[in-house]
Amino acid sequence: MKTAAILIIGNEILSGRTRDANLQLLAKALGDRGVRLLETRVVADRFEAIVAGVNALRASYDFVFTTGGIGPTHDDITTECVAAAFGRRVAEDPEAVRRLVEHYGPEAINEARLRMAQVVAGATLIDNPVSAAPGFRVENVFVLPGVPRILEAMLEDVISQLPRGAPIASLSVTVWLRESEIASPLSAIQDAHPTVDIGSYPFVRDDRLGTSLVTRGTAPAAVAAAMRAITDMLSAAGAEFTVEPPA
Amino acid sequence: MKTAAILIIGNEILSGRTRDANLQLLAKALGDRGVRLLETRVVADRFEAIVAGVNALRASYDFVFTTGGIGPTHDDITTECVAAAFGRRVAEDPEAVRRLVEHYGPEAINEARLRMAQVVAGATLIDNPVSAAPGFRVENVFVLPGVPRILEAMLEDVISQLPRGAPIASLSVTVWLRESEIASPLSAIQDAHPTVDIGSYPFVRDDRLGTSLVTRGTAPAAVAAAMRAITDMLSAAGAEFTVEPPA
Repeated sequence: MKTAAILIIGNEILSGRTRDANLQLLAKALGDRGVRLLETRVVADRFEAIVAGVNALRASYDFVFTTGGIGPTHDDITTECVAAAFGRRVAEDPEAVRRLVEHYGPEAINEARLRMAQVVAGATLIDNPVSAAPGFRVENVFVLPGVPRILEAMLEDVISQLPRGAPIASLSVTVWLRESEIASPLSAIQDAHPTVDIGSYPFVRDDRLGTSLVTRGTAPAAVAAAMRAITDMLSAAGAEFTVEPPA
Repeated sequence: MKTAAILIIGNEILSGRTRDANLQLLAKALGDRGVRLLETRVVADRFEAIVAGVNALRASYDFVFTTGGIGPTHDDITTECVAAAFGRRVAEDPEAVRRLVEHYGPEAINEARLRMAQVVAGATLIDNPVSAAPGFRVENVFVLPGVPRILEAMLEDVISQLPRGAPIASLSVTVWLRESEIASPLSAIQDAHPTVDIGSYPFVRDDRLGTSLVTRGTAPAAVAAAMRAITDMLSAAGAEFTVEPPA
């Protein structure tokens, strides 16, 4: 199975001003494609931090996705950082220029807008159907924008470039029991279903503590069997529960 | 200024099942205390990944906060990983046992619940006013739960242990202009206000592109002066804008 990592570039995430939405968007799309997301890093808009992040992740995972920092303003430094990480130069891409001139109109093109046609030399463009300014791919690194609406619109192009793996099948059940009431039988079920990942996630809702139990794996029959073992255990405990998606 | 990093431990975040909320909670609390959050990593529930993450971050930043993986179920492995990262053993903490017995009642205590009294040897407990099971601190690493409601309730205790730095002052203005219409004067304003970080964040709302401009820094007067330069520039361009918080 192919592996992936995300590098989120953004002071606004680390300051708490903005709550990131791109990790979840990319995670779901990668899961559907059968690519396993194993790590995400969030770094500030600093040259050394971005270069180090790109180089650490591209060496450790099959694919890396960066988000943020490819706009036209002074704080958009991702392109030069990715170039430095690869030891390449930044170059204006003629096709990107054509798309930007077409989008803004020849009279409204300006230096800032043309800055978005600067990509890492040798990169392949990623189509942006919302605002024209393209993302790009360099080897195993996909350089994507930070605005979730625009990133989402680029995902089809991006995901189609990845090999298709076995998608992760997943079932979940929600129950108004505390984790500590079911930890022991749940552990036995995990031991009996070693090909399935069983996750236990407590939550607080309306001041009550509940638990979501999730079975995940590449073999749908095994995932379903582990979930049946869990619901049998919950039934035996006399608990009411809801399975998602319904069988 | 002291620096910090967060290590989010959770398959459920990397699978896209759950959208993380803890980064933003911690980021805001750290910013208010004047501690600078410089990096966040999200790793899977895997021993090697967690140990490597703890050791990389605690060597690079003044404080590290882990979230997730300290509950009573088989997939909660954070405590043993943090112990391994420090080369320490895991030990039952008598005060944690006392709190758990008091919370659940002596008749309802069980092996799974007592598992939450296992901490890294020599750790200091962090009070959990919601569900009793404590977090803990080992040297510069704070080990916190993944449930946002519980993490939030622990933050007062955690934050009070950090040195107080100059809080980051911040102003922002929202305008219905594209970044590319203001990138050039904005860059000049950044050059003229080198002690202030000026961030430009595009967004899409109701199918329109707008931009938020943020000035941040430790000197409130400088932050305000940079914001005045920005609003003067926007006024000169004839744009309507909204400043937050209002002057």
